[in-house]
Amino acid sequence: MMRHVKGARCVRCGRTYEAVPNLTSCECGGILDIEYDYAYIRENFTKEKLAERRNYSMWRYRELLPVEDSTPDTPLRVGWSPLYEEKRLAEELGIGCLWVKDDGLNPTASLKDRASAMAVAKASEAGASVIACSSTGNAASSLAGNAAAAGFKTYIFVPSRAPKGKVAQLLTFGATVISVEGSYEDTFELSKEAIDRWGWYNRNAAINPYLSEGKKTVALEIMEQLGWEVPDYIAISVGDGCTIAGLWKGLKDLYAIGFIDRLPRLISAQAEGCCPLNRAIETGEDWRPMEENTLADSIAVGVPRNADKALMAIRESGGLTVNVSDQEIMDAQKLLGRSCGVFGEPAGVTGTAGVKKLCEQGRLPSDAKVVSVVTGNGLKDVANAIRFCGEPITIPGKMDLLLQEFDKRGITP
Amino acid sequence: MMRHVKGARCVRCGRTYEAVPNLTSCECGGILDIEYDYAYIRENFTKEKLAERRNYSMWRYRELLPVEDSTPDTPLRVGWSPLYEEKRLAEELGIGCLWVKDDGLNPTASLKDRASAMAVAKASEAGASVIACSSTGNAASSLAGNAAAAGFKTYIFVPSRAPKGKVAQLLTFGATVISVEGSYEDTFELSKEAIDRWGWYNRNAAINPYLSEGKKTVALEIMEQLGWEVPDYIAISVGDGCTIAGLWKGLKDLYAIGFIDRLPRLISAQAEGCCPLNRAIETGEDWRPMEENTLADSIAVGVPRNADKALMAIRESGGLTVNVSDQEIMDAQKLLGRSCGVFGEPAGVTGTAGVKKLCEQGRLPSDAKVVSVVTGNGLKDVANAIRFCGEPITIPGKMDLLLQEFDKRGITP
Repeated sequence: MMRHVKGARCVRCGRTYEAVPNLTSCECGGILDIEYDYAYIRENFTKEKLAERRNYSMWRYRELLPVEDSTPDTPLRVGWSPLYEEKRLAEELGIGCLWVKDDGLNPTASLKDRASAMAVAKASEAGASVIACSSTGNAASSLAGNAAAAGFKTYIFVPSRAPKGKVAQLLTFGATVISVEGSYEDTFELSKEAIDRWGWYNRNAAINPYLSEGKKTVALEIMEQLGWEVPDYIAISVGDGCTIAGLWKGLKDLYAIGFIDRLPRLISAQAEGCCPLNRAIETGEDWRPMEENTLADSIAVGVPRNADKALMAIRESGGLTVNVSDQEIMDAQKLLGRSCGVFGEPAGVTGTAGVKKLCEQGRLPSDAKVVSVVTGNGLKDVANAIRFCGEPITIPGKMDLLLQEFDKRGITP
Repeated sequence: MMRHVKGARCVRCGRTYEAVPNLTSCECGGILDIEYDYAYIRENFTKEKLAERRNYSMWRYRELLPVEDSTPDTPLRVGWSPLYEEKRLAEELGIGCLWVKDDGLNPTASLKDRASAMAVAKASEAGASVIACSSTGNAASSLAGNAAAAGFKTYIFVPSRAPKGKVAQLLTFGATVISVEGSYEDTFELSKEAIDRWGWYNRNAAINPYLSEGKKTVALEIMEQLGWEVPDYIAISVGDGCTIAGLWKGLKDLYAIGFIDRLPRLISAQAEGCCPLNRAIETGEDWRPMEENTLADSIAVGVPRNADKALMAIRESGGLTVNVSDQEIMDAQKLLGRSCGVFGEPAGVTGTAGVKKLCEQGRLPSDAKVVSVVTGNGLKDVANAIRFCGEPITIPGKMDLLLQEFDKRGITP
């Protein structure tokens, strides 16, 4: 019995459901949204109570999370990633303030750990022993890691293009990995069939409505780390749509319980080669599938499964959309590395690439206060980083050769 | 003026030095050790004072760190990595308690961030604008990242065998990278020559005595996270020797100021193919150079530069040595992944491989309480993980093909 949760409601047809642990989608095919009793939460949860808490993980926000009181924290330390204020970069970009939230420092190196920890908590409430998902990679590795730590078995479906780093994580975490020769769509469909057949707990983020609730903790943290001072914009990369939907849910929760007094605008950053959601916002038409034509594999999602919630989030927030090329993404990776010491994977830095582009286009006011979420670690996809970063100076260990090379390259130490 | 620091003393000849920011080695070639005024620290630092502190980074231990009061915390959030109690794995290994400290969750994904953050702090005290080092990889990437975040320029010397993930980090962080075709020894010598020539701030851990002081924060954290209850053993992988020396220094500091009432024994784990320090302990003779014959690149150090401090640490603690094969290292990587959801790089899991081997050899009592430090993230070296983890099940997206594969492999979902 979750006293603070009212139930789940379909975002498409409005039908309501009881919040049982193994909720999936609505009969109409729509995605469910967890609804809270905010009046109850307001009575039982204060900023002061939170400030006293020493649990620096996503579970510090239990009053806003759809789990039973008796459900234990999941074992890996997920959440409370650092939020860095980046003064030099803000100045370089010509905005008032910039904060970078490095969610690549989660246990399996991406924001998806927040959703997977939630999946593990709910699977344990459901009495399941197996959890399954399909994913472009990060949802998969985060599920494999979080589930392994908690003693669950996992079956994981990835498209065969997934970078080797992510696959290595899955195998090391002991998952049974099915690599599907085909698109993300093919991968998703096979996983769905297998989950139905064997009754595994479903960690597909666009099916299981609890997962956005895990992801929303990134918003709760940002606001607590900013001392509840609301920024003007929060930028994030968008693929399936679940992450930006989760981000928005967290912000709305905080607004509903009075922890913040206004809402920021979202910046939805997609790759030019795969931007079905941004295109829908920009044209005002329904979203249509697109090719998956970008090196930012984690957001190469031509058929976004959580389009409804994502589009609603961007629209409700009065959000901005921005589409960036692969070159712009990799430039942002270097920029974050050089200026901030943060190494993000291509999809991870796409939000920052979007901020940079909006600045160049003059679409952000010069006093704008912006948070940019880096959603995954650059070590997940080293091949692309190396491709765009160039090569080191390679020489035998002789000073005269070093001097020659410095001279040739115009380096003056 | 650091009121709590007395100075530096050569561990070989005993000569003392003033603790200026750009200290290097003793005139005799010996390595310096920073000495504290423990009586002063005892008066000004209590467990209660520490417990109230909300700064969850290595800088929470300022009273025990050799920096000026006015030196700011370095920008990246280094330290306070999670310490997981691993009940299932302890049972599997047949010991009383096992904790795994995942230091791969530091900002650049290794324990070396602790030393590099210290280097950045001291370089800033020294008024330097350039920092340089040689490294098998992790010291380098951690320096590049921490220095970039703080606005320093870096020159970094790596042996050309360094894994691509580490090199990609360096380049992304904007370092000038010199990849030396030769051994770690060759790399080190060229860096030394260049540092002398251009007067860069020196972040070679075996030269700069402050770096162990950064590394020792891993010990301070372990003890605080255990509520100051001292384990019987702390296991860690050993290459250059600086890390185990730092670990020991932290423990001795805590003992000296009365925060702990006894000292644990160290477990020094090296690769069979490169174990000059363990061999010295085991034979009772001086250490001699060895080939660098292991895939655990971060500890493939044939000529350990901090042998004196490391040997002293192992001996003083009544430590155990254990040498593991590459296969045992990679088995430990899988074991940590499957049982704990922790993905460590080969050198990172060598301590755990050592604990497992000691258990198999009956060299640890069945009630032993053991901490195993994982020193680096598995994403740093994906190639080896993939080599040892096998391949996923690769099929087109058809259920009948999945059933065939499960059947062929004896998988019963």
